[in-house]
Amino acid sequence: MKVIMDLCIVPMGVGVSVSKYVAECQKVLQEAGLDHQLHAYGTNIEGDWDEVFAAVKRCHERVHAMGAPRITTSIKVGTRTDRNQTMQDKIDSVQTP
Amino acid sequence: MKVIMDLCIVPMGVGVSVSKYVAECQKVLQEAGLDHQLHAYGTNIEGDWDEVFAAVKRCHERVHAMGAPRITTSIKVGTRTDRNQTMQDKIDSVQTP
Amino acid sequence: MKVIMDLCIVPMGVGVSVSKYVAECQKVLQEAGLDHQLHAYGTNIEGDWDEVFAAVKRCHERVHAMGAPRITTSIKVGTRTDRNQTMQDKIDSVQTP
Amino acid sequence: MKVIMDLCIVPMGVGVSVSKYVAECQKVLQEAGLDHQLHAYGTNIEGDWDEVFAAVKRCHERVHAMGAPRITTSIKVGTRTDRNQTMQDKIDSVQTP
Repeated sequence: MKVIMDLCIVPMGVGVSVSKYVAECQKVLQEAGLDHQLHAYGTNIEGDWDEVFAAVKRCHERVHAMGAPRITTSIKVGTRTDRNQTMQDKIDSVQTP
Repeated sequence: MKVIMDLCIVPMGVGVSVSKYVAECQKVLQEAGLDHQLHAYGTNIEGDWDEVFAAVKRCHERVHAMGAPRITTSIKVGTRTDRNQTMQDKIDSVQTP
Repeated sequence: MKVIMDLCIVPMGVGVSVSKYVAECQKVLQEAGLDHQLHAYGTNIEGDWDEVFAAVKRCHERVHAMGAPRITTSIKVGTRTDRNQTMQDKIDSVQTP
Repeated sequence: MKVIMDLCIVPMGVGVSVSKYVAECQKVLQEAGLDHQLHAYGTNIEGDWDEVFAAVKRCHERVHAMGAPRITTSIKVGTRTDRNQTMQDKIDSVQTP
């Protein structure tokens, strides 16, 4: 089952700046070989359900290992059986309706 | 790794009423033996990371099997390494600060 | 326009425990006279669009005034024109499908 | 109070394809003169709290007027008092940590 995900990981108890934790999660996604695109309030990811969610788990493990005692993460995840759709398809469908 | 999750599954392309799909997901959570609590805009779930996310996947599979061609799901998921905390602890900490 | 909302306010840069900030937001909602129900990962709120969103803004103002330099908030908000529906109706429709 | 928002509007009861509704919301944001950036699972918006939330309300009104009987919207909204930060700053802080 293929998914398109929006992922936003928020480490808590590490002060106000969290960019180094987000950068580490970008590395996790790259190591996983997953298509992903950072935006100003999260990261879009595309791939197989199990691979994408395994990467999300590794992000939590990695951010805890960096010293964050608490993490709250927001995820939007879409699946569809009617057609195959990429992240770019979703953007194109809005921009050229 | 233990998680507390808030899960909101939205089937698309099945009309305006989606309660039967949400009811089916409640069954999935019960079958999985996971502590869970329905509220007016989602369901709180507590358990081991892998078991909770496996149940979320089964919810998507089950809702697609019921005929929904598209699903968009919102998830909040919290983990912490500093202490063990239940769903009820979170509520108590706010109500008796 | 009536809304049912799920609100989850996360203060950042104030350490790992945020319950006193959440408790303060409960006060804001009570002062506003809005129907609301705390759960383990947020608060459900019901009311007129403008009143509910004005309360959300006051929550941000109050939490900043308490000393939190940064806040990231997750909101789900539902509106419908086909029928009037309360938070309890949503729960009932799932539990007695 | 300045906000950075991530907005994802999901019309329900209008079938599986919702791109024309999302495109209409892009128009609402343009008409409001708000900085915004579409991505594969939502739109980032930057501006004054009241202006941004007024635009979100107009999106709901417009999408209902187009015929959608029900809308469920996911919002992430960030405010901070310690510094001024743009959407591009957030991306830069991760990419050049």
